[in-house]
Amino acid sequence: MTRPYNFSAGPAAMPESVLRLAAVEMLDWQGSGMSVMEMSHRGKAFMSICETAERDLRELLAVPSQFRILFMQGGGLAENAIVPLNLSRGGAVDFVVTGGWSQKSAKEANKYATARIAASNEADGHTSLPTPASWKLGKDAQYVHLCSNETIHGVEFHELPDLKALGCDAPLVIDFSSHVASRPVDWSRVGLAFGGAQKNLGPAGLTLVVVREDLLGHALAVCPSAFDYKTVADNGSMYNTPPTYAIYMAGLTFQWLKRQTAGGLSGVAAIEQQNKAKAELLYSFIDNSQFYQNKVAKDCRSRMNIPFFLRDEARNEAFLSGAQAAGLLQLKGHKSVGGMRASIYNAMPLEGVQALVSYMREFEMTQA
Amino acid sequence: MTRPYNFSAGPAAMPESVLRLAAVEMLDWQGSGMSVMEMSHRGKAFMSICETAERDLRELLAVPSQFRILFMQGGGLAENAIVPLNLSRGGAVDFVVTGGWSQKSAKEANKYATARIAASNEADGHTSLPTPASWKLGKDAQYVHLCSNETIHGVEFHELPDLKALGCDAPLVIDFSSHVASRPVDWSRVGLAFGGAQKNLGPAGLTLVVVREDLLGHALAVCPSAFDYKTVADNGSMYNTPPTYAIYMAGLTFQWLKRQTAGGLSGVAAIEQQNKAKAELLYSFIDNSQFYQNKVAKDCRSRMNIPFFLRDEARNEAFLSGAQAAGLLQLKGHKSVGGMRASIYNAMPLEGVQALVSYMREFEMTQA
Repeated sequence: MTRPYNFSAGPAAMPESVLRLAAVEMLDWQGSGMSVMEMSHRGKAFMSICETAERDLRELLAVPSQFRILFMQGGGLAENAIVPLNLSRGGAVDFVVTGGWSQKSAKEANKYATARIAASNEADGHTSLPTPASWKLGKDAQYVHLCSNETIHGVEFHELPDLKALGCDAPLVIDFSSHVASRPVDWSRVGLAFGGAQKNLGPAGLTLVVVREDLLGHALAVCPSAFDYKTVADNGSMYNTPPTYAIYMAGLTFQWLKRQTAGGLSGVAAIEQQNKAKAELLYSFIDNSQFYQNKVAKDCRSRMNIPFFLRDEARNEAFLSGAQAAGLLQLKGHKSVGGMRASIYNAMPLEGVQALVSYMREFEMTQA
Repeated sequence: MTRPYNFSAGPAAMPESVLRLAAVEMLDWQGSGMSVMEMSHRGKAFMSICETAERDLRELLAVPSQFRILFMQGGGLAENAIVPLNLSRGGAVDFVVTGGWSQKSAKEANKYATARIAASNEADGHTSLPTPASWKLGKDAQYVHLCSNETIHGVEFHELPDLKALGCDAPLVIDFSSHVASRPVDWSRVGLAFGGAQKNLGPAGLTLVVVREDLLGHALAVCPSAFDYKTVADNGSMYNTPPTYAIYMAGLTFQWLKRQTAGGLSGVAAIEQQNKAKAELLYSFIDNSQFYQNKVAKDCRSRMNIPFFLRDEARNEAFLSGAQAAGLLQLKGHKSVGGMRASIYNAMPLEGVQALVSYMREFEMTQA
């Protein structure tokens, strides 16, 4: 039986082979007699699972040695507080607002710091990216925050800003929740990156933080110990009991990612080619249609989250119920944007996007 | 094949039937075409899973209607900060210290409140319970905190204190991580209870909070939104993306628990009888032995976590390697206590404890 294609924005589709292996290993991980869920996080078996996951992720994302990889909990929304608790020193922070997520981050940071809006695309409904040269960055900023892929509005940074070239010495913080591991990261431009796992890495409940070592150790006194990056780093992500099964599933996903190949490339470079092909297929179909539309400027369209609209919105319900019947799941747009949204993360095969485009073409014809 | 018996203190053994069902449903939950891991937390399928889990838990623990059930993240160590962030109002809090966990809780609370030690059993190495009449409770305490089962030291409250009868109007906060759902809770004596799931409820990464409604809405300004109980309650535990798969696994465990029966009882009352029988078997064997010992006072011995020692500690390694070979896993004691620890949570069958006692008897004979 073919599984349906699941376009959920997150928690999202996972590679089928990863799920199959997890099912096989559910009662007995590699002869241990235990499910991974049942293992002490301090035992040899789980420690090896966790260390392998971290090593594979470091290799996949080419994380330099001066960065620490932390496995945490609470997702992006918790990090909206945890980042300023750790990095703001109670001072000023500059936010580049490009959609719903960076907006939320700025609001939460105001609890701990002076959150300033250095740039915003709110005036055009979050459909463009303000050019870095126009950002108002303060000399006193403790860090600059941006969301490198806006899950709701479908806006993606295809190049991270070079803050130094803009005359700014502050570290760059990126929320890369919804495109982590879909493309390489230029770590020379980043101080800290965070993301919930539930789009490209694994199940919900695991949060990834990659942080440059010199940024550790500056938490505010009111930062809970379990969320102090230095405490987490010093304890190898095991100050509190980590979400062990989610780490295991992420580890299996990393191994799947390492096996990906395309045009002589492998790993993240390979999946990036696949992601480009998938996104181009869907955007070019939409752009060539009089029936559907995407409103995001072409230079900053997300490869992962593609919001689109039927020009006649009265047909939305029919579109969604037909999609469901055709095995194309969870295509409804976010309530703040409306319309549809196709999230096509790493685990979505090209065939899934082809099936979506075929359905969209057919639906349009039946409505003519 | 018989699975080994797993005595891990947490993450801990889960019911075999729960793991089997999870394996079967891994790729396709009830005809949805999705793994539970792949479902949007706001979709109908996962919402029904989450609502059923909450309803079953409320029924199992007989949680009164004026209490809210919250599914959170971060475990007991995060709650050590989250509770005072929500309940202390920056004032004074009284702690009853009975072991490693309540000690940690008091230390962390000092970041947000004046944490006072109302009573402590440190002088006798955390092997007794100070009687409630001796507790020094302040009139100005915002709440009184205790750990109702100390996982490391094996000390359990078999009756919760009646603070009102002690002349104290403050709400009682209990950390019931390691014996939740192993016995009924007297909610008339409790204001808030919290616990990590990874002992009796499900996989690590899920935290349960049960809180009386009048205690919501008093969080300090520096409380992260994702950990403000009122925000969590107002959003049905979905302010941030919840740990969906862990909630699903906990829900399956709740259904397993509802099916338990013993002597005309069912659910938690039935599992309590089983837990009593398991603990009595192990304690009476130890007490009748000259080779093993348990140091905790008889009136407050934990039914869940049983630390024990070989009188000749030079034999510890031989004991542990023999146990491993006999299919008795994860018996090493916590590093702060030493010796051995058998954690015999709900999912440990009586047969597992019988197998442990048989092994202990045989080991003693081979060492004679």
